[in-house]
This record gives sequence, C-alpha cells and structure tokens, in this order.
Amino acid sequence: MLLSVRSGARASMPGMMDTILNLGINDEVVQTLAEKNRRFAFDSYRRFIQMYSDVVKEIPKKLFEDAIDTKKYQRGLKLDTDMDANDLEDLVKVFKGIYREQTGEDFPQNSREQLLDSVRAVFRSWNNPRAITYRRLNDIPSDWGTAVNVQQMVFGNMGDDCGTGVAFSRNPVSGENEVFGEFLMNAQGEDVVAGVRTPQEIATLKQVNEAAYNEFVAYAKKLEKHYKDMQDMEFTIEHGKLYILQTRNGKRTANAALKIAVDMESEGLITKEEAILKVEPKQLEQLLHPNFDTNKLKSAKVIGKGLPASPGAGTGKVVFSANKAQELAKNGEKELILVRLETSPEDIEGMVVCNGVLTVRGGMTSHAAVVARGMGTCCIAGCGELTINEQDNSFTTANGEVFHEGDYISLDGSTGIVYGEKVDTVDASVSGDFAKFMGWADSLRKLEVRANADNARDAKQAYDFGAQGIGLCRTEHMFFEGERIFAIREMIVSKTPEQRRMALEKILPMQRGDFEELYKTMKGYPVTIRLLDPPLHEFLPHEDWEIRQLAGDMNMSFEELKEIVVDLHEFNPMMGHRGCRLDVTYPEIGVMQTRAIIEAAINVKRQGIEVHPEIMIPLIGDIKEIKFVKDIITSTADQIIKESGIELKYMVGTMIEIPRACIIADEIAKEAEFFSFGTNDLTQLTYGFSRDDAGKFLKSYYDKRIFDFDPFQRIDENGVGKLVQTGVKLGKSARPDIELGICGEHGGDPKSVEFCHRVGLNYVSCSPFRVPIARLSAAQAAVKDKK
Amino acid sequence: MLLSVRSGARASMPGMMDTILNLGINDEVVQTLAEKNRRFAFDSYRRFIQMYSDVVKEIPKKLFEDAIDTKKYQRGLKLDTDMDANDLEDLVKVFKGIYREQTGEDFPQNSREQLLDSVRAVFRSWNNPRAITYRRLNDIPSDWGTAVNVQQMVFGNMGDDCGTGVAFSRNPVSGENEVFGEFLMNAQGEDVVAGVRTPQEIATLKQVNEAAYNEFVAYAKKLEKHYKDMQDMEFTIEHGKLYILQTRNGKRTANAALKIAVDMESEGLITKEEAILKVEPKQLEQLLHPNFDTNKLKSAKVIGKGLPASPGAGTGKVVFSANKAQELAKNGEKELILVRLETSPEDIEGMVVCNGVLTVRGGMTSHAAVVARGMGTCCIAGCGELTINEQDNSFTTANGEVFHEGDYISLDGSTGIVYGEKVDTVDASVSGDFAKFMGWADSLRKLEVRANADNARDAKQAYDFGAQGIGLCRTEHMFFEGERIFAIREMIVSKTPEQRRMALEKILPMQRGDFEELYKTMKGYPVTIRLLDPPLHEFLPHEDWEIRQLAGDMNMSFEELKEIVVDLHEFNPMMGHRGCRLDVTYPEIGVMQTRAIIEAAINVKRQGIEVHPEIMIPLIGDIKEIKFVKDIITSTADQIIKESGIELKYMVGTMIEIPRACIIADEIAKEAEFFSFGTNDLTQLTYGFSRDDAGKFLKSYYDKRIFDFDPFQRIDENGVGKLVQTGVKLGKSARPDIELGICGEHGGDPKSVEFCHRVGLNYVSCSPFRVPIARLSAAQAAVKDKK
Repeated sequence: MLLSVRSGARASMPGMMDTILNLGINDEVVQTLAEKNRRFAFDSYRRFIQMYSDVVKEIPKKLFEDAIDTKKYQRGLKLDTDMDANDLEDLVKVFKGIYREQTGEDFPQNSREQLLDSVRAVFRSWNNPRAITYRRLNDIPSDWGTAVNVQQMVFGNMGDDCGTGVAFSRNPVSGENEVFGEFLMNAQGEDVVAGVRTPQEIATLKQVNEAAYNEFVAYAKKLEKHYKDMQDMEFTIEHGKLYILQTRNGKRTANAALKIAVDMESEGLITKEEAILKVEPKQLEQLLHPNFDTNKLKSAKVIGKGLPASPGAGTGKVVFSANKAQELAKNGEKELILVRLETSPEDIEGMVVCNGVLTVRGGMTSHAAVVARGMGTCCIAGCGELTINEQDNSFTTANGEVFHEGDYISLDGSTGIVYGEKVDTVDASVSGDFAKFMGWADSLRKLEVRANADNARDAKQAYDFGAQGIGLCRTEHMFFEGERIFAIREMIVSKTPEQRRMALEKILPMQRGDFEELYKTMKGYPVTIRLLDPPLHEFLPHEDWEIRQLAGDMNMSFEELKEIVVDLHEFNPMMGHRGCRLDVTYPEIGVMQTRAIIEAAINVKRQGIEVHPEIMIPLIGDIKEIKFVKDIITSTADQIIKESGIELKYMVGTMIEIPRACIIADEIAKEAEFFSFGTNDLTQLTYGFSRDDAGKFLKSYYDKRIFDFDPFQRIDENGVGKLVQTGVKLGKSARPDIELGICGEHGGDPKSVEFCHRVGLNYVSCSPFRVPIARLSAAQAAVKDKK
Repeated sequence: MLLSVRSGARASMPGMMDTILNLGINDEVVQTLAEKNRRFAFDSYRRFIQMYSDVVKEIPKKLFEDAIDTKKYQRGLKLDTDMDANDLEDLVKVFKGIYREQTGEDFPQNSREQLLDSVRAVFRSWNNPRAITYRRLNDIPSDWGTAVNVQQMVFGNMGDDCGTGVAFSRNPVSGENEVFGEFLMNAQGEDVVAGVRTPQEIATLKQVNEAAYNEFVAYAKKLEKHYKDMQDMEFTIEHGKLYILQTRNGKRTANAALKIAVDMESEGLITKEEAILKVEPKQLEQLLHPNFDTNKLKSAKVIGKGLPASPGAGTGKVVFSANKAQELAKNGEKELILVRLETSPEDIEGMVVCNGVLTVRGGMTSHAAVVARGMGTCCIAGCGELTINEQDNSFTTANGEVFHEGDYISLDGSTGIVYGEKVDTVDASVSGDFAKFMGWADSLRKLEVRANADNARDAKQAYDFGAQGIGLCRTEHMFFEGERIFAIREMIVSKTPEQRRMALEKILPMQRGDFEELYKTMKGYPVTIRLLDPPLHEFLPHEDWEIRQLAGDMNMSFEELKEIVVDLHEFNPMMGHRGCRLDVTYPEIGVMQTRAIIEAAINVKRQGIEVHPEIMIPLIGDIKEIKFVKDIITSTADQIIKESGIELKYMVGTMIEIPRACIIADEIAKEAEFFSFGTNDLTQLTYGFSRDDAGKFLKSYYDKRIFDFDPFQRIDENGVGKLVQTGVKLGKSARPDIELGICGEHGGDPKSVEFCHRVGLNYVSCSPFRVPIARLSAAQAAVKDKK
C-alpha cells in the first residue's frame, strides 16, 4: 500500500508543504509494480524521488527539471508524457544520483523512514517564511500549528480508465449553483495544476464516465449540505471507481460569496445568521472600488511593488506635486497619479484630484495611506524600489527605467503592484444580492456604524454606504485648504490673545460653513466634531526658503518667523503640545471652534433640519483638564444658544487615547457625556512606539515571530484592549448611560469590530469606504455572540 | 473688643494673607480709645486702614507709604514712632481719602462688614499665584484650603509695660535646646518684622520683665511637650500680662532638624520612630553638598534666576563648550562653570570637570538637570533671562551685562540664583547626629536603597552614602568617552552583521573594564546593568559640517554618512528604535554587552570578590520580545560561565516602563526574574507627553491649576501609580519571589518612595546624592505604615 502525505492547512497558506505522493515506493516495490505496469511504476518512482527531494531535503528543483529536459532532448521528445518506461527507469537512476550527491546518502528504501521524514517536513513547513507572512497578513495565529493527513494512495494515472480532477460545488467566480472545475484522464493531481496538459471542463466528464460524474455531483451536494458551504474538492478515478481525496470550503470572489450566501438561504440550506458568516467582511472592498480589467492586467508591465495601502485601481499620468496636480486638474486633466516620497497634510487637495497615490516611504498607516483610504482613493505606499529624482521630475525603477511627469502608470491598491502603463479599469457592479445581504446584516447587528469624515464629500460617501453618523470629523483637515492656511498661520504667529482672536475671526465663517454642509449631509444623524488636534508647527513651513517666502507674505522679517518656527520645534511631536493642550494654553481656539459648531447647528436647524452635534475634546488625560476645556465649550455654546432663541441639544465628550485616560475613566466620565476610543494614539502610547518610526523595526518583529500582526491595523486585545475594557468599565460605573465609540483605524477592521461588540461599545467609526465592512463585521460579531 | 484675622496657613505659604489687626475700629471706637490714649488710638486706626486697604481692597501700598513720608517730611521727622497723636489723626484722614478715591466708597464703619470682608480676603488669598506656585513646589494639594483664625486683639503698643515678640523653643539654626528669638517693647508684631526698630534678643526680656520671661519659657516647654516638636511662637505683653498669640512647629535648618530629633529622643520626649518623622528628607540635601558662605552671599550680585535643578553651590570661570572645559581642566583649571543653551550626552565628560552647569533651556528633568543631580554637581536649568551669543563666546543678562569666557560666576543650585562674581563656598560638615539618625532610619525601613550609577566614581559616592547596590547602570553613558564614541559610530555605520561584530569587538574590552570597576566598588552588592537604550542616531552628529568631518575620519563619503544619518532620523525618538528593539534587530549588541557583563564578573570573582550581576532589558512590551532577548543573553552567558569553570549566578530581568508591560506583567514575569519600574518613560507614555516638550505647556497647567505637581518629579499615584500597582500584582501572581524595584527619577523623591513602600517594592534606586534622602523616606514610610 502506498501513501500520500499532505498538510491540513496547505490549501489556504502559501509556503506550506504540498502533497507528497507515492510514499512507500522503493526498489523492491517498484519491481512488483513494474510487473503489472512498467511505465506507471517508474513514473511513480521518479515523481516520488523528485517530490521527496524537494520537500523533505530541499534539493533545488532545477536539478531534476534539467535532468528531464536532457532526457527529452536526447530522445527528441516534447512532452513528459512522451517518455516511455525505459526513459523513466533511466530518470529514476539519474534522480537517485542527484539525491546521493546532494545529501551524501542513498535514497531511503525504508518506508517508515520515508513516512516519518515526510511528516516532519510538513510540520516544519508551518514555519516557512512565506507561511509566516501569510498568517500575519491574514490574522492567523502562529501557535495554531498544522495537521498532517496520511492517506492511502489511489492512482489516476494507471491507464485511460483512470483520471483526476479538482472541482467546486458552485461557481467560485459568479456564485452560480453548478459544479465547476477541471479534470484529466490518466493523470495525477499535479498534472492538472502544472499546466503541461490542458485539463477539460468538469461537465465533459459526463461523456467520459457518466456514472462517476453523477456520483461526483451527488457527493458535491452531500458535502455542501453537510458543511453548509460551497466545497472545493479533489477526486481521483482509479480503474473507473471514484475516490474523493479532499474537500474544504472553497475560496470565492466577493460577488460569488454574496450570491452563494443569499442563494443558500433561499434554498433553505442555511439561516440568515449563517449566511451572514459566509462572507469575509474585507472581501466587500472588492465591490466598492473600481478594478482593473483582469485580462488586460495579465499582460501589463510590472515596475514595482509596495504596500497595498488603499484598495481599488487607479490609472493616470504621473505628477510629482500636489500643486501641479491641482493645476492640471483645473485644466481638465482627469487621469492623474500623484507620486511622492511621502505625503503631508498640505498634499490633501492634490490627492483629491488624483486617481491614485504612490509613495516611496511610509507604511500601511502613513499619512498617504490613511487619507487615501478615507477618500476611497487607491494608494500604494512604501514602494522603496523606486527612486524619485527631484531635479528633473522623474522616478527610476529598480530596473533603471525612468518615468517622467506625464507618463502613464497604473496602481493596484489591492495587491500593491505598480504597472508601467495605462491599464483600463471597470466599475464594480453591485448586484441586488448586496443590498439584500446588507439588510440582513443591519437587522442583526447591535453596534452602530459611523464614519470618519472631514468634509461634505466624504460624509456623502459615508451616508450612501450606510453610515449612521459621523464619529470623527478632524477639524484640522479643514485648515489646509486655500486661504485658510494663511489665517491659521496668522493665528500661530500672533503675539497676544487679541491678535490671535482676530486671526481666528477670519477662520470662523469658513469652519461654520463646513459644519453646515456636514450637518445637512448627515440629515439628523449625530456629527462628532473633534477640536483642533495637531501641534501648531504642522501648519508652518520648515525649510528656510519657505520660511523666507511666508515671512514676506506675512509682513514679518525672516528672523522673526524663523524664531517662531524654532520655538515651536518639538523633539517628540506625537507627545507634544497638541490636542486639548492647545485649548488650555490658547482658550481662544476652543471658543472659536465651539462658536463655529454651534452657530452652524443653529443655522441648519433654522432650515428645519435636525442636528446633533457632539463636541469631542482630544487627548484628555486628567479630570481638571477636561473640566477646564469643557467650561470653555459650554459657556460659549450656552450663550450662543440662549441668544439664538433656538432649542439645541449638543453633547460634550472626549477622545480616550491616552493610557491615563483609561485608568481614570471614572473621573473623566463625570464630565464627559461620551467617550470615543482613539485607538491609533492609544496603541502608540501603550506600546511606546510611534507609527511613523515603528516601520524601521517592526519588520524584524515579524521575521522573528515576536509579533503576529500589526497592532495599528488590528487591535491588540491583550494590551490596548485591556485598557479599552478598563475605560469602558470605569466610564459606565460613573455614568451608566455614557455613549461609547471608537474612531481609530481599528473601527474598520473586522476582528477589532468584533472586539468592540464584545466589550460593549455603542458604535464604531471608520473611513467611508469601510462602512459596509464594519456593518457586516458588527453583524457577524452579534451572530457569533448569540452562539 | 477689637479682633485680628489671620490665615491658618499663612506662615508656611508665601502669597497667603498676613494678619489684619484691629478689626472693629471705626470713627466711634477710635473716639472712645482716644479718651484713654490718643496716640495709640489713631496709630491703631491708621494701621488698620492701611492693612485693610492693602489686603482686602488691593490698593497699592505705595500710596499710603508716600503719605507717611510726606507727613514726616512736612514735620521734619525721621521715624514713624516720632509722629505724635495729631500727626496720626491727620494721617487717618489722608488714608480715608485714599481709600475713598480708590474704591469709590467710604472706609467701612460697620464692624461686621469689616470682619466678613477680611475673612473672605483670607480665603481668596489661597489662590494667590505665589501661593499656588509654592504649593506645587512643596507638594501641598490645592484642595486642602485654608483655615481662618479670628482672635481678640491684645496690644503690645499701649505703653512701655507692653511689648511683643517672636521666639522658638529651640535654636532653629543650630538646634541647641534654648529659647531663641526677638522682642520689642511698646510695639506690635509687624514692628518686629518690619525692621524699622531693632528688636532685642529674647534673653534680655528677663531683665525687662522677669515674670513674663519665665512664664514664656515655661509655655515654650509645655507647648513643645504637647506638640512633641520645636515650637515657633508669637506673644504679646499687654500692661505686663503675657498672651501667646500663636504657636506652630518651627522651620529649621537641616542641621537643627537632626540635632533636635536626636536630642528629643534622648530627652525621652519622643521615640526613635517619632524622631525619624521630624526631619524633612529633602532637607538632607543641604548636608550633602558644599554651600556658599551665607555672609558673602548677601552682598553678591544677582544676574539671573533659573530652576534649582541640582542643589549645591558652584563657583568658577564661564566656559561655553564641554570640549573647552575638558581642555582647560587638563591644563589644571579647577574652577569652571559650563554654560550651555542645553546639554546633550556628548557634554557629559565636560560636565564632570566643572563645578556647576547653567543652561538657558530645559526643565527640572532636562538632560543637564538629570545628569548633574546624578553627579552631585550643582545645576541651574532653564535660565531663560540669559542670551548666549555663540559667535563671540559670551552671554548677556537681562540687564544687558555681558559675561565672556573666563569671567567668574557662581551658581546656587538650591535656589536657582546665578551670581555675577566669585562667591566662596564652605564644605558642609556632617555632625555625629547625622550618622546616628541614619542608623535609626536603616533599622526601621523595609525598602532597600540602591543607586543609579554609570561609573566607578558615582558608584563610590553611592556606596559611601549607604547604597545597597546599583539599581541602574546606563551602559550608553559609557559610550561617549574618548575613543569609544568612534567605535560605536563604526558599529552604527556597519553594513553587515560581520562589520558590526568587528566594531563591537573593539568596545567589548572597554565595557568589561568598566563593569569590573563597578563590581569591585560595590563589594558584593547587586549591580543592575541595563542593555543599550537610546536610539542609535543619538551617537551620530547631525549638522552637515560635523558629518563631513566624521565622514573624513571614517573614510566614508559625506553623502554615504549623510544618508545613514537621514535614514536613522526619527519623528518621535522617544517612541522609536531603541531599548530592546535594538537587540531584536541587532542581536550582536546584546551578545557583546552580555559578554562584557559576564566576563567582568568572572574576572572579579576570580579575585575573590563576590559579584551579583543583574542584567536588565529595557523597553519590554511583549512576552515573545523578552523571550527573544533573554535567549540571546542566557545562551551567551551560560556558555561563557561554563567555559570559565567559575560558579556565577546572574539574574535576567526587565525594565517596566511601557504601559503595555504593566498590563501583561504576569506574562512577562514568566521570563523576568526582576522588574525595575522605569517611571520616567512610564510617566511620559501614560500621560502622552514627552519630558523634553512638556515644558512648553505645563506652565499653563500649573497656572490654571490643572496640575498641582510635576509628575516627572513626584509619582502620579492616580494614573502612573495604578499601572505600577497592576504590574506589581500581576508580576507577583506569576512569580511570587520576583524582585521589584524602581529606577526612575522618582526613586529619590520622598512622596514617591512612600508610594513604593506601600505597593510592596523591594527597593528604590536613585542618584547617589539622593541615597540618604531615600533611606530616610523609606524609614518614614515604614513608620507611618505601622501607625
């Protein structure tokens, strides 16, 4: 009896060991086999030596492939299948020689030794670097380990009444309810996959062996019913008899996943709750962004690979500065890709007009990545293979090819691949099943879903995707546009509170206008507005020539402005003079922002539209601190409301993003009507590493298996999560009806949404394009919780 | 009946309201009084108007002083006491006029109104800015509030059988057991203080009124026995009869405090435990550093005031760079004061050879302050009034006076005052009481006291001050000296692990030598050595000209080195690539440091000296992270020990300085044999502000009474302290015999030491000059705990 060995997790994990067939063959066995079928016997033996050498001994594959090619060349043959029994017997000798040369030992003749070494090789492959990377990217814990399957061999290559195939119980691309797959007669599984012979569609098996076909279809239905999911199966026919070698839940496209879930529910195979669990939330991204035409993509020229920072497809002409992009866009250019070393807040307006953003530096949570995801624009970040040549507006690829401004490139934000040409895109079509499915999700979930949106455009997108409010409006993002940045700079260089107030007066009407738009767009849903957060030096230039220019514009001397810039410099800006600390030192800022928020609300309410502003104070760490800032807000707001004669309710709450805030959350809840966990900063401070700098060492942490996942993308439940739980518990103890949400990047991550459900938050807030993902994740969390 | 009003806390708090005498006088009362004693009546009235106007109405004092001067000038008189009843009656009218002019109202005639407004003024003075600052500096919570004393007036100014005085039950300077103080006949309390008339020594009261004197001495003894402490009393004699107006525990010098505590114990007045509580630990600093000759100080020219960052007195010639200081010191110059904008690690060698350090920027925990305290060198930080002129090596004072290199200045590190001349210093004499007293402290305390010391010199100092080990040796401080910095830089610019190992080989013997010295100095006490902590860019220059120079020295191109510097740049170095993260990315560093630690221990042990190395991993935040680094350490150490044939025990533990480490301390304790709480970083991360940047906004936080104290100096028990408690609890749950210590700045702060005792740490570690303070604080904590 011959055996095959395969890993339990092979299929879903790149780098894991493939099947080793024909275990148990040795010189003696092959003689016995050869008596029945010489070609089959030696073909099986040479395949076995080849696989065993590759997988168990890590002997380079090329040595064996070269030997086969040599043999075919000598014999004037084209295909492997053209080789006869003698050729294969020769190859067995050659292969054994290679094995001996590489290992210093003879090929093992003891079956037990073959088996145990193979099993060990499977376990070893769990720690293959590719498997490690794959697990990290897919949130699979490394300590799960793998199983090993040992099966008796059956043979699809013993003659023309034998065959083998791979098929799905439904169509994995469209989701249609029909068996879908391929088979080959007189072949083994690897022949189907390897592409040497062209396999046939599974439907034609009916003509070849109707009984086997019918039996297979019946098994497919039976297994689908048993596992309550679409199945991906391998089978072999040995002398006319069907064997199912393996079955597992099949991979599928987002469209197929939706159709299968909805169909199975209407077929009565699964409940709505079960259907909800059938779609991977992250898959929905495929449905929300335009994508490349798959056929065109295959032939497109790859020029680099970076991080898939924001999904979708973008094609356009290279442009190297945000200003230039705006200028071109004004002149009607619609296809632009912004290429930058890294982006900064000043680039936002330029990013808006581009089809995609490519940066050389930065990670998945760099400025470019975060902003692009928020906008739903595709983005590839950290593509370090490219070199930007600033002098002549060009970049050079690793191959030395140079791209100039105006040359076409294309970005696949879902894979991180950069193409050196124009590739056509197709708009994603959202089928009717999508709406139906999301309706189920909404009826099942407990968590509200809000969106992070800083302007009416993003808010509209979020509303259309089903957001039930804005969970985070970062007011500083409104400060970079047009004339505003100038007014902000005037405020920063002010020497007295009066000067500062005068500059703030100029910003007031602009902010008020922005908020009015937001309120109108959200049609009565709550709108959470965060007071100014970043340190002021972010609004000033840092290079001398920029300072000189600005000083001229502001009627100051270079020295005067330079001194202000130097004074504002911070060693650790992330832990500097920012957030509510700005309102403590310059209460005028909080007053102006409160006025804008409340006056806008009154104006919109006067138009008969419901408004629910929630004013959010960032970076609170102490009870007296929130008391101080809250006093500024309420005294300003209450007076305006009183004078207006309009009845307006507003809430005042705080970000919980500093470890200390979690620890003293009971005190803070005395003042705060809501908490919004800012898990970006909370993660930075809890781990003690900055998002902007961690890239330099996190790679080592993944390579050395210290970290399994990126804590900035998926919430670290053991550490950061414990602080969130403490914050929730203490917050509720002091104010039982406190509103609890999360507005960090984690709000759009399925695993983290599940965590938010479990700890009892009221809502998650995420970027607009992640709203459907969050809605589905929230529903899945509720369903799992019920179980 | 007339009343006086005073605050309960006046005496101990600058800015708090002084006594208001003679409440109840009005036009009518003064007529009645005048019938008995006209001069007394109008003198009392004009004093009352003057005080009331000052304290209750905040009318400028100068208006009244000018009026008195005018009157004396008109009448050709010199002293206030020369004025007769008519003059005083005139002044009452003038004063009432001033009052009316300033307030728009007549001077209040209603006694009740006078009383209530005065009481309100006392309460109000609690929030006087000077009082707020004082409370913050002295750790007095703002929410305590003050009491108000209302007393019936007695008069020391009704004639020659009347008088008033202030006296202590023991000498507050020397501690001698004798009444000590001053009195004046025919006067009120303010006359004693104001210095217009010269008061007499209390002993001479015996001649003036023996009965009153004897009665006073008897009261002094009685009160001292009652309060079990030296008393500071105010008294008045009215027509021969003694009244005690007030008594409180008296302020005293450190020497006096020690003598009084030791004397009272031998007199049987108090127990050893009570004696221990009689000395303010921070006072001991006075005994440990040289001080200025007090008489010389009075006449010295003050040129600026900064933060009293490191106590003691220093006098010397101004020098503006650490290199120059070293050069001058080599040539025999012993009196130098280093004046810098701010210091950096490269300045350390220069700081060592100076008598004091003065910086223009930086706070109490700036680099200069921390290092100077560690060295026991006096330091004034953040003296922003001075402007350094880099071009011509000089600085300018607020008055425009210029000091050049070589000019003498003097620093009083206990007051923050900078003197513009040479002031002689005297070595502090430590009396025999000191040793006796510290012996009691040692017998009572539960906490061990270790020291933070990076070299044999500091370790010696610590050992002499009673340290029971080294709790923190910052190995990076050893890297800046002489040739070492060059080897370190070679390591940093290495392109391969081999190059890096070769550079590390050069550092190995130097580190090993350092550790040998440390072990020998500490004579068998534990020596805790922390692996390299700061980010590598701290060892490289940043200015182009410096990079160019170094590139030349290293045989590299400028561009090559510049690229390395740029690559190593971090946005938030505090949260960057440092601590154990360096050992994860470059395990060679951990291997070299372990070798140096263990080989040094073996060498010293071969000489028959006991050695207890404790290897400390900084910045741990995850269980797999400590496992990884610990494996590097133990595999290296165990092999060396095995090969040496010497039996050597060593411990491996970790800093707990990241919030996450506290939260998962049970996991970490599985690997760590000891925890050392690094409360500097833990405070930064828990609050989310960096020490280097917080100075910019913390002033607003004090002014607005959001913060009562500096959390970098005194541990924040509500926030950071909670995390420490969590760490302790979880750590002990996983490893009951885990060794627990603290090595942040807080280890030398009395309130924080008390906290460490309460939460059950085994030791505190602080800078050498704070070791006696920590020993006493630990004893006080144990005594209070017993109660």
